[in-house]
Amino acid sequence: MAGASGGALAAEVYLGGGFGFLAAGYDSPDNVVKEIDIARSHLTGSCTTDRLPIGVGFLGWQLEKSTSRANELLSIVLDNHVQAIWLAFGQELGQHIQFIRDYENNLGRDTKVAIFIQTSFLDDAIVAAREWKVDVIVVQGVEAGGHGPGKALPLMTLLPEVLGALGSDSPVVLAAGGLATGAQIAAMLALGASGAVLGTRFLLTPESTYTDAQKEALALADSRSTTRTMAFDYARNTLGWPAGIDGRGLRNRTVEDFEKGESMDNIRPKFLEGVQKGDRERMLVWAGTGVGLMNNVQPAKIVVQELYKDCANHLRVVAAMLKPVADNT
Amino acid sequence: MAGASGGALAAEVYLGGGFGFLAAGYDSPDNVVKEIDIARSHLTGSCTTDRLPIGVGFLGWQLEKSTSRANELLSIVLDNHVQAIWLAFGQELGQHIQFIRDYENNLGRDTKVAIFIQTSFLDDAIVAAREWKVDVIVVQGVEAGGHGPGKALPLMTLLPEVLGALGSDSPVVLAAGGLATGAQIAAMLALGASGAVLGTRFLLTPESTYTDAQKEALALADSRSTTRTMAFDYARNTLGWPAGIDGRGLRNRTVEDFEKGESMDNIRPKFLEGVQKGDRERMLVWAGTGVGLMNNVQPAKIVVQELYKDCANHLRVVAAMLKPVADNT
Repeated sequence: MAGASGGALAAEVYLGGGFGFLAAGYDSPDNVVKEIDIARSHLTGSCTTDRLPIGVGFLGWQLEKSTSRANELLSIVLDNHVQAIWLAFGQELGQHIQFIRDYENNLGRDTKVAIFIQTSFLDDAIVAAREWKVDVIVVQGVEAGGHGPGKALPLMTLLPEVLGALGSDSPVVLAAGGLATGAQIAAMLALGASGAVLGTRFLLTPESTYTDAQKEALALADSRSTTRTMAFDYARNTLGWPAGIDGRGLRNRTVEDFEKGESMDNIRPKFLEGVQKGDRERMLVWAGTGVGLMNNVQPAKIVVQELYKDCANHLRVVAAMLKPVADNT
Repeated sequence: MAGASGGALAAEVYLGGGFGFLAAGYDSPDNVVKEIDIARSHLTGSCTTDRLPIGVGFLGWQLEKSTSRANELLSIVLDNHVQAIWLAFGQELGQHIQFIRDYENNLGRDTKVAIFIQTSFLDDAIVAAREWKVDVIVVQGVEAGGHGPGKALPLMTLLPEVLGALGSDSPVVLAAGGLATGAQIAAMLALGASGAVLGTRFLLTPESTYTDAQKEALALADSRSTTRTMAFDYARNTLGWPAGIDGRGLRNRTVEDFEKGESMDNIRPKFLEGVQKGDRERMLVWAGTGVGLMNNVQPAKIVVQELYKDCANHLRVVAAMLKPVADNT
């Protein structure tokens, strides 16, 4: 969640009992160091090892702009001994993975960083599992907020497809896309995922770096408020995504003007002014379809704890269904 | 499932441990009587009451072509004492429900038919629950095969939204759309649904009235083979659906020609010939996104039994997760 998830959010998620990622999407090496330091300061006294119990997420296509910069960024996070690296949206993810594995070998560490690959396609999941031998595959459905392939399948279809193809010697598979509640996490576990990834829900926390205006827009939105679009990438000039990738965010006049074919020369100044003023009708707010299921800002720690309780309650309900099942089979 | 689900399929689903519906979509009163008789013959000796343990599904917009015909069709199924009536895609569903309730009152029966309303929108679900006081609401996501609103939300978003709004005094809520496996049913139960509805999976049974060519096409299809379209309704002249409704089926050249803007005068003869010859590139095969998760024709009874076992296995896995949860909360 570039621009939304820094070291504070990643650390607080861990302190709540989850595992959080710092998004290094467009960040400079200096910024990444700064955010890692923030994470470390939140975690002082809470970790029993040198390893920093957060992950760092990268956009493949940003890394691929320059190999030396990619290597610098990856080295920084490896030197800081984070527990996981998340890679998405790249043409050369296999090369980054190779760099990571080689770098670690040179460091001579016992424990390896867990490599997460995010994908919305079965073929990519198979490559990640069999060729790259990654640790975790994050399967992201079309419901997801932020960037992803506009033609991704719904999660309820995509996840069983991937699980079925990978079989029992698969890496850990996590479900992502539109998930916002413990009930949905329980559903993903029942479907066969080993866990779930929530993005939008953590934008509605004091620790996320979204603005108050963006958080208010999220709290007010319902499940039908989101759309997939390239309007914001044009408006803020973050083009360069691989083919077929767009982003899901709250629909507003920036999107409508873009769809009507208005020129960026007209759209961009209004967008930038809207961002400045916190104008919901113009600014960018990434959001998944689960946005209708959340309406208040809560500390990330509390969010994780509530998700856990909600999930456990739903698991208890289905566990209770097993009694008559046992009598019948 | 008009044209696919007759009395034999509905009855065999019941005999497997499920509850099946006979689809009376475009049927004449004579046909409905015939299919009910087929169901009854399958069920002779298996029922302990006079009530026929199947349901009958109607298309609202077909009933609404003529009130007298609607009343005739509804009377037939009520006289035959079916256990459930399913209504979908109508502007006047409330009136049909009123007719059903009045007719039953006149019959003076103790047990009432269960009324199922299928919807993809929260507002409609609220009307069905609070005004019409229906027994069951079938919440259908955009993944569903056959007809539905093209702008429906994915099931993983829609279902929590409906469950959250209806609260605890809600009618029974069932999940529908793209579901094909016991794992998916377990997921829907974990999410909070009281059960799940599967369509496409039951097309791949000897009892469905789909042709062998259609069944073969289903067995060969994957999750990315489906599309939402009006091509087939134009080609076979089944227009008259409420605004915003289209159908999800296997993508083929009939769809492609329609999207290219070719005239129906060109498309229709090729379509009709394709239907005749069982040509996959031309004929109509409705299918939900779960079609990639099935590949063989099995008796409906066996399908239900396998779904049940698969679902129970997935529930057992999540139930086993509760031990550490219990230690932690």
